[in-house]
Amino acid sequence: MKNAIGKLPGLAVLLVGKRRDSQTFIRIKIKACNEVGIASFIAELPEDCTEDEIINVISSYNENPSVHGIIVQLPLPQHLDQEKIVNAVSLEKDVDGFHPTNIGNLAMRGREPLFIPCAPMVCIELLLRSGVEIIGKKAAVIGRSQIAGLPTSLLLQRHNATVSTVHAFTKNPEQITSQADIVVTDVGVPNMVRGHWLKQGAVVVDMGTNLVKDPSCRQGYRVTGDVCFEEAIGVASAITPVPGGVGPVTISMLLSNTLDSAKRAYRFT
Amino acid sequence: MKNAIGKLPGLAVLLVGKRRDSQTFIRIKIKACNEVGIASFIAELPEDCTEDEIINVISSYNENPSVHGIIVQLPLPQHLDQEKIVNAVSLEKDVDGFHPTNIGNLAMRGREPLFIPCAPMVCIELLLRSGVEIIGKKAAVIGRSQIAGLPTSLLLQRHNATVSTVHAFTKNPEQITSQADIVVTDVGVPNMVRGHWLKQGAVVVDMGTNLVKDPSCRQGYRVTGDVCFEEAIGVASAITPVPGGVGPVTISMLLSNTLDSAKRAYRFT
Repeated sequence: MKNAIGKLPGLAVLLVGKRRDSQTFIRIKIKACNEVGIASFIAELPEDCTEDEIINVISSYNENPSVHGIIVQLPLPQHLDQEKIVNAVSLEKDVDGFHPTNIGNLAMRGREPLFIPCAPMVCIELLLRSGVEIIGKKAAVIGRSQIAGLPTSLLLQRHNATVSTVHAFTKNPEQITSQADIVVTDVGVPNMVRGHWLKQGAVVVDMGTNLVKDPSCRQGYRVTGDVCFEEAIGVASAITPVPGGVGPVTISMLLSNTLDSAKRAYRFT
Repeated sequence: MKNAIGKLPGLAVLLVGKRRDSQTFIRIKIKACNEVGIASFIAELPEDCTEDEIINVISSYNENPSVHGIIVQLPLPQHLDQEKIVNAVSLEKDVDGFHPTNIGNLAMRGREPLFIPCAPMVCIELLLRSGVEIIGKKAAVIGRSQIAGLPTSLLLQRHNATVSTVHAFTKNPEQITSQADIVVTDVGVPNMVRGHWLKQGAVVVDMGTNLVKDPSCRQGYRVTGDVCFEEAIGVASAITPVPGGVGPVTISMLLSNTLDSAKRAYRFT
């Protein structure tokens, strides 16, 4: 695109406060932008900034024609209204796909959201590229976060799976998961999904990222998913590991959404 | 509201073409408005009108402060882009709740849609008023239309049911429905749901409205639901009949949404 029209896609990242994990995530995103030739813009605001200050920054990115994607690194500090802030991102630059209009268009068949959240896109992409048939299959999605579980349920339904959504109020969740051909987890509880929760031959996508204390590791902890991998591997026909499964591909989807947005903006096909 | 602030709520209805069923539905809605003291506005456009003509009418209603709700009677003639037209209704006046932003906010926990589609609201209201516990219960929603099935799934999930969505690609739908405590149908196939599809004691909400030829009836047809009522009544602990179940209450919800909208507009609480 740079060679053809002399323009770069641009991604703007907004960080409020000094959370270590958020800083790490942002560093990874910026590094990925640099590697593929996407211009990056960072705004760092102090922990105690006001909603108006943040929305002013978002507005300036909304109006900036060199910015094609805007992400607000979540979670925000407690005193801020996350809904109001996420809604301030222009629909055309919502590369995270978290705007309710994008979520609504994702839910409604026959409509096309401008952006689909990255983690669910990875889930579907992994299934398709592994040759897993989705249409007509029973899928159980455990968890319903706005970042992963909810949009994954909606996206699997778009692909004509028969989806059951399992959450904290579900009684006997293992009864539902053990009937599913595809099990997706987005819970945040290490090793919650045990081998007997799964049907023989099920395909498992583990979206969990949990830090578990482990003195034998250099950092004092290790990263694990929601699924008890050792047990599941004996039952599932395919499973994504944590770390190394869904996570790394998610960044690629963010870059892909940003590129799509830039192409739309420059009418470059 | 009229006595307190001298203002009436107002509902605008837009009809394109001369479909008999649409004309009947609109007549019922206008009559209901008259009965409860809601001002009604009707725009009738010819079958061959253009999108721009329709959107101009919608825009004038969007700007009219006496109009608090706008409904576009669906289906529209084939040559019109229904998505574009429905999207033109101001979010603040979308009393049908069909705008993707309202659907997105319905899907996202912790957010409040300005309006919830009427049929799903009736479904929940009937369950709650009948003392049916929703939280933690297994619900099967058969069908996923944008008017009924999809928003009902989302709303049941908001009420913390464990929802499975059954549709045309689902294999063995009766296996899923027969495990459900609550079964909601929105299919448009008369008598599709048979007695053996249901668990003993299940609660059944039939949203289907199907016309079945019946020479013994005066009009030559009778109205029936998606559920084989005679079989289901022996298995279910509660069931809504068709006609007479969900349908009549739906209009009340439309009026209620219009009143809510007027209250918001006039800051009347």
